[in-house]
Amino acid sequence: MSILVVGSVAFDTLTTPSGSRAKVLGGAATHFSLAASFFTDVRVVGVVGTDFTAEHEAVMTKRGVDTAGIEHADGLSFHWTGSYEGSMGEAKTLGTDLNVFGAFDPKIPESYKNSDYLFLANIDPVLQLRVRKALPGVKMVAGDTMNYWINDHRANLLKVLAEEDILIINDGEARLLTGEHNLVTAAKKVMAMGPKSLVIKHGEYGATAFFSDRSFDDPNASTTLFRAPALPIESVVDPTGAGDSFAGGFYGYIASQPKLTPQVFRTALFYGGVMGSFAVEQFGTERLQNTTREEIDARFQLFREISHLDLDAA
Amino acid sequence: MSILVVGSVAFDTLTTPSGSRAKVLGGAATHFSLAASFFTDVRVVGVVGTDFTAEHEAVMTKRGVDTAGIEHADGLSFHWTGSYEGSMGEAKTLGTDLNVFGAFDPKIPESYKNSDYLFLANIDPVLQLRVRKALPGVKMVAGDTMNYWINDHRANLLKVLAEEDILIINDGEARLLTGEHNLVTAAKKVMAMGPKSLVIKHGEYGATAFFSDRSFDDPNASTTLFRAPALPIESVVDPTGAGDSFAGGFYGYIASQPKLTPQVFRTALFYGGVMGSFAVEQFGTERLQNTTREEIDARFQLFREISHLDLDAA
Repeated sequence: MSILVVGSVAFDTLTTPSGSRAKVLGGAATHFSLAASFFTDVRVVGVVGTDFTAEHEAVMTKRGVDTAGIEHADGLSFHWTGSYEGSMGEAKTLGTDLNVFGAFDPKIPESYKNSDYLFLANIDPVLQLRVRKALPGVKMVAGDTMNYWINDHRANLLKVLAEEDILIINDGEARLLTGEHNLVTAAKKVMAMGPKSLVIKHGEYGATAFFSDRSFDDPNASTTLFRAPALPIESVVDPTGAGDSFAGGFYGYIASQPKLTPQVFRTALFYGGVMGSFAVEQFGTERLQNTTREEIDARFQLFREISHLDLDAA
Repeated sequence: MSILVVGSVAFDTLTTPSGSRAKVLGGAATHFSLAASFFTDVRVVGVVGTDFTAEHEAVMTKRGVDTAGIEHADGLSFHWTGSYEGSMGEAKTLGTDLNVFGAFDPKIPESYKNSDYLFLANIDPVLQLRVRKALPGVKMVAGDTMNYWINDHRANLLKVLAEEDILIINDGEARLLTGEHNLVTAAKKVMAMGPKSLVIKHGEYGATAFFSDRSFDDPNASTTLFRAPALPIESVVDPTGAGDSFAGGFYGYIASQPKLTPQVFRTALFYGGVMGSFAVEQFGTERLQNTTREEIDARFQLFREISHLDLDAA
């Protein structure tokens, strides 16, 4: 089934302990699309400037991503400049040039209207809601957000949360959104805001999914939570886009399955972790461009192996 | 098989978001002993003052812990005062009264000399080494340490690490000990210092075990790492002793098994997480005093359930 993702298509100028790169292809929608493309059909809604060339677009189309919804505007593309130090847990923003993204008004091509799954990447919740309303027939809505919207655009954000089936955020965002330090308490408060299910990403430690009695159609699905590990990775080159790649792998897998069961959700968390683990191994989208489904499935098996206890084993 | 643990037996005065407690029984050796006592025989070497009453000793002996090695000295017992705020990730030390612990000179009762497993809780590495040398016949040595010894007593610490089969530390300690941010790189460096295996605790996110080609007797055990989750807990009352309780559950389980296989090591990590998760639910050692092996095994099953992906499931 097809996923429509709306979000940023951008250029990143990055400095990490492994080196520097100027204006490499990035953006939440880009990382998400590439990661999800290994599982299902993906359609992108975004806006770029004249610096976004046919070569950049080919990065996506080569992976089968539909770029008909990428608007080409006069001016430059969104450009983020950032650096990471030490354990690279947090990015330091050195520059945010919104450029054409500052006036982004998502336009949904007619050919996208039959999309089954919607992913609202981290953009203004007013735009997230507008896109969601324009696609009343989607089967499922998942979304992301960030501190800025939580702090300064809370009322608008709450309107979107009420429409989401799955919210995907990190520990800090969950705490900021609820004012709760404890993640279990925070999760309950988030789900009371609307999302039927919540995925909290813990960076290098994996992710936890919290379920409510609305998470699954099956009334016998009494699952309340699930925790998936991340692979400890020695060669972290650039963490930019890891969270979006996680979301792409996670939601892409879900969209590839006939029904959202607890088992599908759990498996999706593992695939999310797998795609996030690939993303950080090279700068920008390089690693996602150069992986294969075989490699992905091999790492999926590795994730299981390093975290599973076979009680029947010797 | 029997474990001898050497470390602090102390009183803690605690303030957490859940309340305050004055002079409750604590100390690394106490938490470790109680947690390990659910799996195997435990013998404690420590020192206490006149404020350590028969009632305090009974907390341990009731769980079958051998307290013959607890020396009763003139003066007061080690007394730590600390507080936790917010997500309780880090303790704030408000007072450290070493009292009789300041002149601690571990004395090993004759009846302890046949101990099979040795656990060197977080004390001066000079004392850790002295105890280790006094027990040349033990089957396995595991140990803990902390920032203070890593920073200011490094040469002595390195002598102990060279004697250890398993080192159990947290992320921060692993980074401080090696100067490496990346945990995989740090783990390799730690194992080059001596320990055959390394367990890095990630607090609420679980723990990762790193293995070397010396970790197991079996030359076919090519396992390189394993990651065990922690249960997300809503009612964290007091995190004091969680790490020592983890170590007690982990090492207690290992000592209860005939041989250290990869499977035993993995299972032990789960039991470590289980005991740590109980420890934080009440102040001091209260929760460990009031649990049962049935409750422990039920939580062990829960840990598996919330983290395991059964590929054969529907």
